[in-house]
Amino acid sequence: MSLNALLNPSSVAVVGASSRAGALGQRVLDNLQKSGFMGAVYPIHPSETRLAHWDCFPTLDALPEAPECVAIGLAAERVLPILEQAANRGAKAAVVFASGFSEVGEQGQRMQKSLADFCRSSGMKVCGPNVLGVRNLHRQFALYSAPLAHDAPRGGVAIAAHSGSACVALSGTGRFGLSHVVSMGNSAVLDVEDYLEHFAGDPNTRVACLFLEAVRNPGRLAASAMRMRAAGKPVLALKVGRTAKGAAASAAHTGSLAASHAAASDFFRQAGIEVFDDLDELIETCALFDAVRKAPSGNGLAVINISGGEVALTCDLGHELGLSLPSLSEETSSSLSNILPSFGTVANPLDATSAALSDPSMYAKAMTALLDDPGVGLLAVSQDCPAGLSDAAALGYGRLAQTAVEIEKTSRKPVVFYSNVSGPLHAATVEPLRGSPVPCLQGARPALVAVRAFLRWHGWTATSTLPPVNVQPIPAWQVRLAAGDALSEAEAKRFLHDHGVRIAREATAGSVHAAVGAADEIGYPVVLKVDSPDIPHKSDAGGVALSLRNAQEVATAFDHINESVRRHHPGARIHGVVVQEMVRGGVEMIIGTTQHPPFGRGVVVGAGGVLVELMNDSAFALTPIDHARASDLVGQTRAARLLAGYRGEPEADRPAFEELLVKISAIAEAYADSIETIELNPVAVLPVGQGACPLDALIIPRKTDN
Amino acid sequence: MSLNALLNPSSVAVVGASSRAGALGQRVLDNLQKSGFMGAVYPIHPSETRLAHWDCFPTLDALPEAPECVAIGLAAERVLPILEQAANRGAKAAVVFASGFSEVGEQGQRMQKSLADFCRSSGMKVCGPNVLGVRNLHRQFALYSAPLAHDAPRGGVAIAAHSGSACVALSGTGRFGLSHVVSMGNSAVLDVEDYLEHFAGDPNTRVACLFLEAVRNPGRLAASAMRMRAAGKPVLALKVGRTAKGAAASAAHTGSLAASHAAASDFFRQAGIEVFDDLDELIETCALFDAVRKAPSGNGLAVINISGGEVALTCDLGHELGLSLPSLSEETSSSLSNILPSFGTVANPLDATSAALSDPSMYAKAMTALLDDPGVGLLAVSQDCPAGLSDAAALGYGRLAQTAVEIEKTSRKPVVFYSNVSGPLHAATVEPLRGSPVPCLQGARPALVAVRAFLRWHGWTATSTLPPVNVQPIPAWQVRLAAGDALSEAEAKRFLHDHGVRIAREATAGSVHAAVGAADEIGYPVVLKVDSPDIPHKSDAGGVALSLRNAQEVATAFDHINESVRRHHPGARIHGVVVQEMVRGGVEMIIGTTQHPPFGRGVVVGAGGVLVELMNDSAFALTPIDHARASDLVGQTRAARLLAGYRGEPEADRPAFEELLVKISAIAEAYADSIETIELNPVAVLPVGQGACPLDALIIPRKTDN
Repeated sequence: MSLNALLNPSSVAVVGASSRAGALGQRVLDNLQKSGFMGAVYPIHPSETRLAHWDCFPTLDALPEAPECVAIGLAAERVLPILEQAANRGAKAAVVFASGFSEVGEQGQRMQKSLADFCRSSGMKVCGPNVLGVRNLHRQFALYSAPLAHDAPRGGVAIAAHSGSACVALSGTGRFGLSHVVSMGNSAVLDVEDYLEHFAGDPNTRVACLFLEAVRNPGRLAASAMRMRAAGKPVLALKVGRTAKGAAASAAHTGSLAASHAAASDFFRQAGIEVFDDLDELIETCALFDAVRKAPSGNGLAVINISGGEVALTCDLGHELGLSLPSLSEETSSSLSNILPSFGTVANPLDATSAALSDPSMYAKAMTALLDDPGVGLLAVSQDCPAGLSDAAALGYGRLAQTAVEIEKTSRKPVVFYSNVSGPLHAATVEPLRGSPVPCLQGARPALVAVRAFLRWHGWTATSTLPPVNVQPIPAWQVRLAAGDALSEAEAKRFLHDHGVRIAREATAGSVHAAVGAADEIGYPVVLKVDSPDIPHKSDAGGVALSLRNAQEVATAFDHINESVRRHHPGARIHGVVVQEMVRGGVEMIIGTTQHPPFGRGVVVGAGGVLVELMNDSAFALTPIDHARASDLVGQTRAARLLAGYRGEPEADRPAFEELLVKISAIAEAYADSIETIELNPVAVLPVGQGACPLDALIIPRKTDN
Repeated sequence: MSLNALLNPSSVAVVGASSRAGALGQRVLDNLQKSGFMGAVYPIHPSETRLAHWDCFPTLDALPEAPECVAIGLAAERVLPILEQAANRGAKAAVVFASGFSEVGEQGQRMQKSLADFCRSSGMKVCGPNVLGVRNLHRQFALYSAPLAHDAPRGGVAIAAHSGSACVALSGTGRFGLSHVVSMGNSAVLDVEDYLEHFAGDPNTRVACLFLEAVRNPGRLAASAMRMRAAGKPVLALKVGRTAKGAAASAAHTGSLAASHAAASDFFRQAGIEVFDDLDELIETCALFDAVRKAPSGNGLAVINISGGEVALTCDLGHELGLSLPSLSEETSSSLSNILPSFGTVANPLDATSAALSDPSMYAKAMTALLDDPGVGLLAVSQDCPAGLSDAAALGYGRLAQTAVEIEKTSRKPVVFYSNVSGPLHAATVEPLRGSPVPCLQGARPALVAVRAFLRWHGWTATSTLPPVNVQPIPAWQVRLAAGDALSEAEAKRFLHDHGVRIAREATAGSVHAAVGAADEIGYPVVLKVDSPDIPHKSDAGGVALSLRNAQEVATAFDHINESVRRHHPGARIHGVVVQEMVRGGVEMIIGTTQHPPFGRGVVVGAGGVLVELMNDSAFALTPIDHARASDLVGQTRAARLLAGYRGEPEADRPAFEELLVKISAIAEAYADSIETIELNPVAVLPVGQGACPLDALIIPRKTDN
């Protein structure tokens, strides 16, 4: 979708234009003038004839032509009538600055809904409400209510932020060139995915820099991120509200719901969107992508410094951030042994020693040797250069920076410079880097996070979107689930059985006699469990008896269970007692799925049994998943070592368990509209060749308020 | 210990003085001159008569007085003879710049040892070797080989760094005032604890800022940190080599050994030293402590911002960093409801909304309300102000900063300002903060880490150093352990029994007959385990049989064990088979101690049994520990929930288990010289009142190379 009418219009009208210093309409006009916009500008004012250097008009209808875009600088309750007029006059887009919509309660939410409904029906492309506005630096265009960042460099980074303050902060660093600044505010009409679609097709934009408070439409966001990727443009995002409290603070501001961090993380990973934890990380990554045009050859990072202590710091941070700092090849090592002074140590990260200061050619050779190593995909030059350095020291370091720029020219691999200490940096050191393809990053941690994002973005591969197992919902079960009642364990197992999942042999018995008969049929030993939709924790209620070896034990247990659960849960509906084949041995695992709006459903796998909460051992993915992803997830758990046959135990049937994981995730997708949660705990993963068998199952229908 | 002769001398001699541009001796003289040193300076040169503006002397002996301190700018092999001359001439201190000592192999290590031995016997206080030198800004004194940081502000922060590059970086930020810069290098004679002792007594130093590659003498370091604390001066440290690879890189540089991260962390915590993960965190914390004189009233942090999105970011980071952002009192909430605009939301962190920009008095009232809240110990004002902001925006934010300065004047609690975005910051915003007690921090993450360190430093309390249990080593066991052989399980249990630890009833049997007799005596069921010092994993070797219910089962198991272990470990020494009371029920835990040089011994506690590695659930402390610390450690494990009676199981005897933990840590201390490792796994923690009983025990004598 092109947003040219909004972001690159030939004419604009400003409703609420004003000459009063500090008034919003005055600031918007002032910014239009200062930014040097070349198109037609029509201030709308009931009485003035001229404002700034443009002729005024009393109404939109009085304009000599249809304005492509209309800036509406009026209070919330006056916005909709003006939008209707603008649409009638032929305008295609608008910026609505006013706050007082969904962020301030019910009445505001109603006003925002009316606004959105009108725009949907009329096709009007609206930025806002509750925004600072939009800016297109390559067109010298701004409909923007806050002071414009001072001499903001023009370039390839497009900023889109739900928060106005974040817009101001990100556009005010001067650390990278900007193509657009978009304050998205409440995003009643256009949201981040619309802007991304535009950026994907915009020749001046190379990178999208996002500050997100909410993801409202993950499907469209993922699709627009794919368009960006197809155009070779990374999408970099800081998503706030990762923690419950953060989400609440953000919700108070924008009226949007937050989803769980795990679901959001997996969504962003699948969408190939790089996410960050703070502004500095986002800024450094923008600076990196803005400067670097070369792709890394693999994810191996080499770092060069002139200090052993700082090399140790790089190791620590690199390890903590999960960067790959590969060992050097024998060839590289032997080259470096010849290049470095005798007291140097050959390693990656490399301490080129302070001899580099007096001998930049040695440093150049060391850089080249590192870049020539086949395991190295990118070289980072680490050198502190805080502003308070002596000029002499800064100049010395500047020669190292200059060397980096020279070496990069002939390298097929990217070279990055960073100061372990954040800015301000000393001009004499960083001057050689200015405008070069070697970015000057700052702060060891955000710089290394930026490098990690760069390597990861280039190494990203799409997750298969084809579910490997196609589960057809069974109408009878859909009806049953739509009723909204939880299923009993026995019902849940029948549900699984009906979808081809192996379950333990079992029968429900309503009497001692029936129970003993069922046990005789199944074969001893057996397990007895109360069958009730109202007792989720059966063990706690005395509703389970294990290892019953004969008819007598079954009879005693039957009576005991009935007595105990009626005492613990006097009002519970009791369908009877399930007599179950006792599956012995195997590793106990858990599989669970649940709804994670707006991202869809997620599946969790981990060590199971009664200790599931204590083990704190789980891996998460959004569904559906294929076999490869299932295997990857199981591999992320510590319980994978149990499955492999821990301490002399037999190896468990991991392939069968992964098959089950794929199947359950497909069931969750097939019943997306009617199942809230599936939990199989434990699943007995039996020795190789014997399969995996859920011993308990919980299925909760979808809550109606979703 | 005063280091006045080194850091505040009245006269200095410079051996190796030179007029050759770039020569070390020339740079040192140049720095002495530039720094404005007022004392006597004696360049030593064989032929020159005058260098810089001082008269030269051919030798130290030719000087008219004994120089208090001697700078030795000669190559490694020439250092020791000059040190001897200097000592003879009456010098008390020296700086040895040369590299080529312990960092470059065996010969260097030998030279360093000779140097250290000489200084120990002569009392010469030496900084180095392999250093940039020392600087005392309040005395305009520098014996320093690198260019001096440009206009470094004079102040209260003393820098001491093992790494020269770190010295340069930390002294070059201009972010805080400096008292000293000490490049510690190889620390052959003086190390960090000596400098801290000096700083503790130095009236110009308020804060120590350390970059450490190694801790060589934790006892002395802790003692010097205590002296600093007694003087009200925080010790802030970045310790590199946290990861194995980082430690290796650092070891390559300084020739020192690294200890485990957990041990180091607990050491620093006990010593009240605040540690950091990167330079930015250290720098921001120095800036905070340098500016703030007030103590916080408790550890509750309030944050004020003018953006909902950034408030959400603060929540996320605050939560991830473990900061306490308390809910506001009802009184504060109702005050704020009256102060904020109607669309504002009352919470902590507080979004004062952009209305603050046009109404700083509202902002001031909101700040005051937050500071008046009894749960708030410190107020942080969060406001982005990157250098590329428009001047108008920066001035607006500057009014908020000015407001913070005004409010702080009448507040009993400290106020901190920070920009979420790192520097360079816009001068118009930060100008009001300059020289005020409101520090201007940068980067949300390092700034909040600095606040956390500040709150933690003020909230620190000493760990009890009196072991609550006094264990007397038993000479016979000391002899046995000194032999260096591992103890068999039975021996290890006898060791524990001899030190008053309850163990399961057991006897070692050498024949089927003896085994059955012992089982009859102990009572069924029993456990049989092979007794061998050479088989650490008995289960894996078929050396264990559980739940033996009668003489026949004991006899069969005895034969089976013998056959199996001889097959698995043909050469193992077999002492017999242990027949043990089968302790049933209880929660399985693990207790382990091991040596962590140089920090002493550490104790680990967690979930036990065969799944110990899989649970990944442990807490660590250096020994000895008292009951309170034992309880704290157990509380840190997830297994604490098992002990409390998980899912209907009986509550376990946690007090008895904690008692055992204290006892084992005391045993580890008592046998510090002879035991490397004690591991009790599992320890059966029985239901309340029934105690805790180690079911297996491993004791490994101390390795001789420690």
